[in-house]
Amino acid sequence: MSSTRPSGSEPGHDVVIVGGGVAGLAAAWRTARRGLSVAVVDPAPGSGATHAAAGMLAPVSEVTYTEEPLLRLGLASLATWPAFRAELEDESGAELDYRTEGTLEVARGTDDMAVLDDLAAFERTLGLRVERLTGRECRSFEPMLSPSVRGGLLARDDAWVDPRRLVRALLTAFEKAGGTLVAERAAGIVLPGRGSPSVRLTSGGTVPAGRIVVAAGSWSAALLPGLPVRPVKGQILRLRGPRGFLTRCVRGLVHGSPAYLVPRGDGEIVLGATSEELGYDARVTAGGVYELLRDARELVPGLTELELAETAVGFRPGTPDNLPLIGPTGPPGVLAATGHGRNGVLLAPVTAEAVAALLTGGAVPEAALSCDPGRFHS
Amino acid sequence: MSSTRPSGSEPGHDVVIVGGGVAGLAAAWRTARRGLSVAVVDPAPGSGATHAAAGMLAPVSEVTYTEEPLLRLGLASLATWPAFRAELEDESGAELDYRTEGTLEVARGTDDMAVLDDLAAFERTLGLRVERLTGRECRSFEPMLSPSVRGGLLARDDAWVDPRRLVRALLTAFEKAGGTLVAERAAGIVLPGRGSPSVRLTSGGTVPAGRIVVAAGSWSAALLPGLPVRPVKGQILRLRGPRGFLTRCVRGLVHGSPAYLVPRGDGEIVLGATSEELGYDARVTAGGVYELLRDARELVPGLTELELAETAVGFRPGTPDNLPLIGPTGPPGVLAATGHGRNGVLLAPVTAEAVAALLTGGAVPEAALSCDPGRFHS
Repeated sequence: MSSTRPSGSEPGHDVVIVGGGVAGLAAAWRTARRGLSVAVVDPAPGSGATHAAAGMLAPVSEVTYTEEPLLRLGLASLATWPAFRAELEDESGAELDYRTEGTLEVARGTDDMAVLDDLAAFERTLGLRVERLTGRECRSFEPMLSPSVRGGLLARDDAWVDPRRLVRALLTAFEKAGGTLVAERAAGIVLPGRGSPSVRLTSGGTVPAGRIVVAAGSWSAALLPGLPVRPVKGQILRLRGPRGFLTRCVRGLVHGSPAYLVPRGDGEIVLGATSEELGYDARVTAGGVYELLRDARELVPGLTELELAETAVGFRPGTPDNLPLIGPTGPPGVLAATGHGRNGVLLAPVTAEAVAALLTGGAVPEAALSCDPGRFHS
Repeated sequence: MSSTRPSGSEPGHDVVIVGGGVAGLAAAWRTARRGLSVAVVDPAPGSGATHAAAGMLAPVSEVTYTEEPLLRLGLASLATWPAFRAELEDESGAELDYRTEGTLEVARGTDDMAVLDDLAAFERTLGLRVERLTGRECRSFEPMLSPSVRGGLLARDDAWVDPRRLVRALLTAFEKAGGTLVAERAAGIVLPGRGSPSVRLTSGGTVPAGRIVVAAGSWSAALLPGLPVRPVKGQILRLRGPRGFLTRCVRGLVHGSPAYLVPRGDGEIVLGATSEELGYDARVTAGGVYELLRDARELVPGLTELELAETAVGFRPGTPDNLPLIGPTGPPGVLAATGHGRNGVLLAPVTAEAVAALLTGGAVPEAALSCDPGRFHS
């Protein structure tokens, strides 16, 4: 994060990307790799929704499998994750804590089990490897699971990654590819009558750009008024325990809410997440923390002994149809890459690929065509 | 907190008090006021058990009323709190957020109510003003109380104070009275064959003392081996809400554990507290936070909307009989003032009075005679 230049003196770039979360940085890296001169404007890369994110790469879950375009997009991105990860780790020299032990989706009652059976049947039609497990089998995989777990599904193709490591690796790879980080806050986009647009900084300087990509998450509508993106507040907890307390991601429906536990290699366990339509209310609340702990505890009772190491709030960029906004937004030379909701980490590779293709004239991945922001203009 | 002197060059003092929590600072202030030269050794006054404390001045509660000597000590201290407070605010120029709206002890079932009736009868024999309230009356006093509250007791003589303000005020008053803060950590006590003892600092210096008072809370046994004091871990939460969300302290027995909510003038609400025999385990745990929120929520459901502003751990200095240790400890010239358990703030005035009397030859308050550490030597 060393490439900051003094404001007011920014040279022009082929592309200026506003927002250094996973979407913006992944797009920046892939675009720089294609030979364009790219700058990312962000005072603190990875400090937005990415900072709170758990990092599951799980396109199919009980909450999304009825949304087909989103599901196809997620599957397309998941398919490219292994190559994306290998290249990124290679170029950055960093490790992402990319884990592939799979997700265990557990059921505690007969009703839950019926829901999981439907889900399993659906996943198999997609060619995904899903195994139906008894409660006993679930506990043999994850001994910390509650005795009340009646059965589950092991989704072997689900993986996960540490979003904070991901941001650091993307930033390193981006800078190694010749990219520039402008560690300042964007105040707006200047669209002259003719000529190229530029990004105005809160410090007063401007960054001239051939083209601009707005990847500012839920704040993107402040730069592109009318863009249908809104903040969906998520509260999320990080526990610290002994390594191996859990090996797999564990998910389950508790009190009607999806709860998940995502273990990292260093013993951290991420408990997520609330979903609240409260605008930019950044408070960690007593009720949010209570419900996350209550629900996770019903899946894994022994977590009560672990340290509560962190509470955090993130604002997922939500859209009316839960699909991202990737593509032209109206003003000439200005693209969007936002609206990824709870799927920013999963969708980073396909988003990067789509943005790079839009900027360099390549083929946009087919699954990403449904993300054209123009769908809200008709 | 400016009176630090370079180590190694400390002048002698009539009295050196090790530990700048409420007990040590209150004793230091009162002793300095009697004309002795006093130093307090503490690298961070008020950062121990005092930092976590809620600050209730409530000698009678369902957990202590069977312990008569402790109860008499608490009542004696409570009686002196108004004068202690007035003098302290006057001399320090600081406000303690001393509040006297009383405590509402609530019951949720018939069994609970019977317990409270016994408690009320007992409190009346002590001459305390206690009112039996219906559930409706409870809610008219505190509208945020749960509809499940069936009745309660209003203890009008209970008060409370902000322990963090209390520490700052005591430190100011102590220094105004000529006292010296040595902002270093004590490593041990040096007891020469003849002559005066001194306090050895971890920095290598020493502080010569006429007499020494060990007021280092649960860490006191490290300075006075064999002193029967142990850490009792308490986890405690601080919420932030609108002013007036609660007016009174609210207490209740939930799932067999005493839960309390202590409101401050600025909208802070302290939720306490766990009581764990785990040595110096300083971790905030998922289970501790969960249980505190769960229990408090059953008394005041609306607190779920408030910000969870702070989690903290403190180590109460516990003793085998729950009474403090105030007085000579064996080695000549060395006194103890520790072992206050969950009652350090309540007992600060009587402790200060007893220590000052022991050091200057005055009369020790009668209720404090039961605190002689010699009771464990026979």
